[in-house]
Amino acid sequence: MKQCWEQVAGGVTAPQGFRAAAVRCGLRQAEANDLGLLVCDSQGSAAATFTTNRVAAAPVRWSRATIAKGKVRAAVVNSGNANACTGARGLRAVEATAAKAAELLGLTPDNFLIASTGIIGRYLPVEKLLAGLPRAVDALDGSLEAGERFARAILTTDTTLKQAALRCDLGGGACVTLGGATKGAGMIAPGMATTLSFLTTDAAVARPLLQRMLRRAVELTYNRISIDEHMSTNDTVLCLASGLAEARPVRDGTPAARRFEGALTELCRILALKIVADGEGATRLVRVEVVRAPSEQAAVAAARAIADSPLCKCALHSGDPNWGRFVSAAGYACPQLDEAKTRLFIGGKLAYAAGAPADVTEAELAAEMAGRDVTLRLDLGLGKAKATVWTCDLSKEYVAINADYHT
Amino acid sequence: MKQCWEQVAGGVTAPQGFRAAAVRCGLRQAEANDLGLLVCDSQGSAAATFTTNRVAAAPVRWSRATIAKGKVRAAVVNSGNANACTGARGLRAVEATAAKAAELLGLTPDNFLIASTGIIGRYLPVEKLLAGLPRAVDALDGSLEAGERFARAILTTDTTLKQAALRCDLGGGACVTLGGATKGAGMIAPGMATTLSFLTTDAAVARPLLQRMLRRAVELTYNRISIDEHMSTNDTVLCLASGLAEARPVRDGTPAARRFEGALTELCRILALKIVADGEGATRLVRVEVVRAPSEQAAVAAARAIADSPLCKCALHSGDPNWGRFVSAAGYACPQLDEAKTRLFIGGKLAYAAGAPADVTEAELAAEMAGRDVTLRLDLGLGKAKATVWTCDLSKEYVAINADYHT
Repeated sequence: MKQCWEQVAGGVTAPQGFRAAAVRCGLRQAEANDLGLLVCDSQGSAAATFTTNRVAAAPVRWSRATIAKGKVRAAVVNSGNANACTGARGLRAVEATAAKAAELLGLTPDNFLIASTGIIGRYLPVEKLLAGLPRAVDALDGSLEAGERFARAILTTDTTLKQAALRCDLGGGACVTLGGATKGAGMIAPGMATTLSFLTTDAAVARPLLQRMLRRAVELTYNRISIDEHMSTNDTVLCLASGLAEARPVRDGTPAARRFEGALTELCRILALKIVADGEGATRLVRVEVVRAPSEQAAVAAARAIADSPLCKCALHSGDPNWGRFVSAAGYACPQLDEAKTRLFIGGKLAYAAGAPADVTEAELAAEMAGRDVTLRLDLGLGKAKATVWTCDLSKEYVAINADYHT
Repeated sequence: MKQCWEQVAGGVTAPQGFRAAAVRCGLRQAEANDLGLLVCDSQGSAAATFTTNRVAAAPVRWSRATIAKGKVRAAVVNSGNANACTGARGLRAVEATAAKAAELLGLTPDNFLIASTGIIGRYLPVEKLLAGLPRAVDALDGSLEAGERFARAILTTDTTLKQAALRCDLGGGACVTLGGATKGAGMIAPGMATTLSFLTTDAAVARPLLQRMLRRAVELTYNRISIDEHMSTNDTVLCLASGLAEARPVRDGTPAARRFEGALTELCRILALKIVADGEGATRLVRVEVVRAPSEQAAVAAARAIADSPLCKCALHSGDPNWGRFVSAAGYACPQLDEAKTRLFIGGKLAYAAGAPADVTEAELAAEMAGRDVTLRLDLGLGKAKATVWTCDLSKEYVAINADYHT
């Protein structure tokens, strides 16, 4: 498909019909905003995907139910506390948050998706959050700056802001805008939907179609990244569509739908890669491509095994072309692998073929791993399927961050 | 079953009928022995389990075939080079090794199991190994010291010697001895048989029974440890039985068989735990027990998820009772988990129950994680199955070791 989108400035408020705000409630120790509010000015449509972890946070349980009702048009997000493993008291905190936000905005509680991120297993100090909500409502604004403040308020151990926006040409002169903000640097694993992500668009897309498109986009992007293979209790990807652009509704099976889904997938990919690039302690962004696999499932399994292995990630950290680790990871993940047919490339150089080392020097391979961006390509020689997974290296800094995060 | 064994001194040469030797061939940069030879003086029986990695080292491919022929009574083991991903040339190196060892000892090549451990993807300098073999044959000795030298020669990044021996009372006044040596500190994952392990006994056990007992023992011990979740290309567990003790053959279904299998399992457990305790960079030995699970498979999956998660291992490293990480790991690994029925204990203290934090202080939980030995117990409240997995913490030292291992 020809690319029909271009990146534009801003994030969640780039599309028409969205206002955002961020305030500080004191949920985080850092002097930073920790409460974000995102509101769609119209009753458009909404879609979302959530963690598949059986230990699901209270806000995830609430939001699954409200998304099913089909009325979501706003989101309240806090950082600093995950409100997970908090039982009935955690759920009451979510209900109080939605009730208060609804009252302040003249909406109903089921108009709200609630999301939380931060420490697991501590009760959310909900009174602080409720005290901050009126200020957040007062601060709601449709500017790009307000969108950026929202994006900053949802961060935890992140070191970089993570937002993006695309302008998409649907064809026939109609254009729509998509925007998004995401967070995440640790507890990132390919599960179902990883981390928190808030996507907005002024396209008009009916809810079932938006849900299908979002699910496919997430599968190819958020579900193909890994920092530490630990699936969170709070993963949520929300997409709100205001329908306020001057464009006809996006209908299933049309060229406009294909263009819109392409842009939505690209937006998710841009945001997901910002997460990997900011992986806790990470110094490299690694693209693991598996090609000529017998099935997409096999390709994903082999790519993930390489992307997840601490041994592979340590070799990637030091830029050491210890390719036996990459090949052996694929070997335990892919039961169809045949050494005689397998080839491994590091960057542009062949490292391993026909079950033996290729004719290449270690210095040549090391040169391919020296930069911030590294590509590993595993050619299984078995079929036509392929998959790409993005990961980062494992550094002492990751251990330092995660040995000390709790206290 | 009442315990019918006691630990005795020594390792592979503790049982009657075994001689061992170790010499230096120059396969490792370190000034250490890197070639081990183990010979059974009788044509007893042998059993073995191997890695399930599709990328299997040349010695594994050789040894699978010779074990199937039923004539194995000796082992040649080298450290410093895994002879994996080395194609036809790697296999020729193994054939030359077995041929030379057979010639020197007056045996046939299919009497030999060959095992290698070290760097993957480099050709084995087989001429160095062949040059060392005559010295190894000359050095063969049945003393406990010779067994210890063998155990030291198979080490790589290990910092401790790993051997043990048990004396087992089979009942009716008959006693047999079991001994073993193992290696491993990294690339340790529960797969099928992990790492290298050489077990000996002077009991007489027919090959099919020995194979079944070994497989079950490995499943409960070597397959229940994890350091870094990366399954090796060279994993091999060999058990040689000389039959030279003054005891009747162990027959299937008898009390003696149950006693012998109990001792064999205990020996494997002792050796496997030495691996975890010496995990690269490890400072703690962690026992993850899952109880009241709906199935043993579910119990193992939940325990492994906790044991493998880098986030859990970082919390274990700092002794931080961040129990949300343990519960959430179980949540993504066990689809049947029900938060309302789940309880997590850290040491003797309840940390989490009925979906919420238990009535315990962080200081109380931290005290349970302060020592070298830590036990986590997850009660799923769903059934009667259980499993235990052993793991270690993740430290900056692990990264340092593995970022620099190759060069």
